[in-house]
Amino acid sequence: MTIQLNETHDVNLRSWVALANQPESDFPIQNLPFGMFRRTGSHQTFRIGVAIGDQVLDLAAAHAVHAFAGYTELQGGEFTAAANATGLNGLMALGAPVWSALRLALSRVLREGASQQGMLQACLLPQSAAEFTVPAHIGDYTDFYTSVHHATAVGKLFRPDNPLLPNYKWIPIGYHGRASSVGVSGQTFRRPLGQTKPPAADNPVFGPAKRMDYELEVGIFIGRGNPLGDSIPVQNAESHVFGLCLLNDWSARDLQAWEYQPLGPFLAKNFATTISPWIVTLEALAPYRLAWTRNAADPQPMTYLDDAQLRASGAFDIQLEVLLQTAKMRGEGVPAQRLSLSNFCHSYWTVSQLVAHHTVNGCNLNPGDLLGSGTQSGPAPEEAGSLLELTEGGKKPLTLQNGEQRTFMEDGDTVILRGWAQRAGLPRIGFGEVAGTLLPART
Amino acid sequence: MTIQLNETHDVNLRSWVALANQPESDFPIQNLPFGMFRRTGSHQTFRIGVAIGDQVLDLAAAHAVHAFAGYTELQGGEFTAAANATGLNGLMALGAPVWSALRLALSRVLREGASQQGMLQACLLPQSAAEFTVPAHIGDYTDFYTSVHHATAVGKLFRPDNPLLPNYKWIPIGYHGRASSVGVSGQTFRRPLGQTKPPAADNPVFGPAKRMDYELEVGIFIGRGNPLGDSIPVQNAESHVFGLCLLNDWSARDLQAWEYQPLGPFLAKNFATTISPWIVTLEALAPYRLAWTRNAADPQPMTYLDDAQLRASGAFDIQLEVLLQTAKMRGEGVPAQRLSLSNFCHSYWTVSQLVAHHTVNGCNLNPGDLLGSGTQSGPAPEEAGSLLELTEGGKKPLTLQNGEQRTFMEDGDTVILRGWAQRAGLPRIGFGEVAGTLLPART
Repeated sequence: MTIQLNETHDVNLRSWVALANQPESDFPIQNLPFGMFRRTGSHQTFRIGVAIGDQVLDLAAAHAVHAFAGYTELQGGEFTAAANATGLNGLMALGAPVWSALRLALSRVLREGASQQGMLQACLLPQSAAEFTVPAHIGDYTDFYTSVHHATAVGKLFRPDNPLLPNYKWIPIGYHGRASSVGVSGQTFRRPLGQTKPPAADNPVFGPAKRMDYELEVGIFIGRGNPLGDSIPVQNAESHVFGLCLLNDWSARDLQAWEYQPLGPFLAKNFATTISPWIVTLEALAPYRLAWTRNAADPQPMTYLDDAQLRASGAFDIQLEVLLQTAKMRGEGVPAQRLSLSNFCHSYWTVSQLVAHHTVNGCNLNPGDLLGSGTQSGPAPEEAGSLLELTEGGKKPLTLQNGEQRTFMEDGDTVILRGWAQRAGLPRIGFGEVAGTLLPART
Repeated sequence: MTIQLNETHDVNLRSWVALANQPESDFPIQNLPFGMFRRTGSHQTFRIGVAIGDQVLDLAAAHAVHAFAGYTELQGGEFTAAANATGLNGLMALGAPVWSALRLALSRVLREGASQQGMLQACLLPQSAAEFTVPAHIGDYTDFYTSVHHATAVGKLFRPDNPLLPNYKWIPIGYHGRASSVGVSGQTFRRPLGQTKPPAADNPVFGPAKRMDYELEVGIFIGRGNPLGDSIPVQNAESHVFGLCLLNDWSARDLQAWEYQPLGPFLAKNFATTISPWIVTLEALAPYRLAWTRNAADPQPMTYLDDAQLRASGAFDIQLEVLLQTAKMRGEGVPAQRLSLSNFCHSYWTVSQLVAHHTVNGCNLNPGDLLGSGTQSGPAPEEAGSLLELTEGGKKPLTLQNGEQRTFMEDGDTVILRGWAQRAGLPRIGFGEVAGTLLPART
């Protein structure tokens, strides 16, 4: 894995889609993330789209008018089938050279002065007129636990005498999640019912969860997979990653505390997981890579998790924000309020290590598989990626600007995650947002 | 849920497929399990098959020659599409009344004297000339932990001071497993590589797993699903279950011990899971139901897990057997040797409780989802469903009849699970077998 910049990263590039050139846009021509869209209310099948400014480019429509003529990797029946599919899995399976050729082609045809502008105007739809779906068929969903700050803070609440377990600094801890309940931004879900055990009670009780929480995560979509029995070496793990999205791993903390031993979280998390509609490719994020470091006092990674290039540029400088809009705020037209701001660079393990670890035993990954990073809490208290941490297990309520208080989520609360990479002199590579709303429990 | 017998359960029924009438056949006309088959080596797409004696009936071919004319539930495009699909998911989605109508039709056309014998002869293939695949697209795979005997024995090894956790008798403990690595009988898999921590060592080491084990389980295939946010009440949970199979949840105990806290097993189990090719319907098992009981001294199930009919007949009387054939035995033509014999009736939680619990929080199940029962160890030591239990954590080696010893699996070992329901005066309802072989680690 070598992080290389090319003409698609040129900071001076401008698009003929005017709003892509606004400095605050999440989707400049240097980004070009992928999603699945259709005209709102059209009930048509979803199609592959590329975000550019405030528009979505219909990939199959662009291909049909020969916008990508001259790119040999983008001819042939395989690419045509992938571009016309109702999920990104086909494109993901084609591999990094095709993704890169497609990015170059998209960059060139969407640039100011491109001769294709005329033919492509008809292939655009305003994002405000579009609705989105989960961008790939997710065969398996795995969630990791890569923030040592989150693991320590949560560990203190669940196991005061033993917060960070001895395996944490050796193994990228992960577990299998539920693929069927992954939804896209805008997802609403009912407060789950289940068993909880009040601290003072002898026996558990049944009812609506009381300690509803969000988790601020990055999602990792697998591109090419590996056959069962093979592994993916850490050195080329990133060539198997199609891109990143935002992920909210909704959690019922009281269900979790009672059920999670010895086999891990189950009903506490499988009622809903919400992701952003856009997948930002690793190539788009190339200018925002950072050295990945490990404290000298900590165990150094085992050979299968270590690599010089990973040390040089394995981390991602992606800002991650959580916002809350209560039902009252929504009713009064008050915008969502920031609860925390963190950064993916704080992750104790990075993307290529997760892929290498997941497959070192021969486990097969498939195109469209989703990995969650785990809650991305930073080192400072205001960088905590869950209410469990922000309120210290519900002991210290947050007071919102309108005077409302929260320990955990209340019915009608909408939580919004945003993410972006930004530095002076470089274009903003945004992820858009992922919103989800908690509905009252089923009665 | 009411267990009703009908004409398909008549013990006097005989088939014109002669070997179905042998008392030792797993597949008499009272069974009629479903799977996906093709002629060995044909490289054709897999087709739905029904086991009868030593033959497989090609369902789509039988439908095409109008063998099911007169059954209104089996006409129409939906059934035709489901019968011609390359997985059982479509048939599973059609629901219990269609499964029941199909069973009745199959029973009638395969009976001695049936007028359809002539047209159906050409729709049969000997099982010995067939190969099989995983019978449905498995969207999500969940594994439970329903044997209190297994949970107690394993708990003693992993947590000597705290073997059975306080939630065990309240919650059907389960976790999400890996769907991508589920294979069908005949699966071979490499000994996984990974991290383990030797008891005396300060730090973990990397290498091939040393404590390879099997787990004797029953698999539960979901038929009709439930929408996200809804639950399936325990009272009609069984109408959502298409049928049962055998399942071997291969486990690397040394990987498991080091990785499993706090989020549960991950690489210790996701390298391979093997199931039997045949799914036996709940209707076929109706004569083998037992009362489900809970010791008066134990917590009684919460309302959402309890039901009078479940108490009357919620359990299954299914014998479960583990056999081992080492490479040496195979080389010398020595048949596999029994390691243990247990029964699904010992399960602390039963099938309808697993479905009700899984969905009580609104988690959606889909047709083809697979639930594992967890290792089915019975109360006696010789009923243990894993080597971990049989050898008391590797401390007491087993001596095989040919003098070989085993604590855990060695390369080349084939483990075979068999299952059947049998009682005097009733036909044997067999599951066939599921075999899997451990290959040496990747070098």
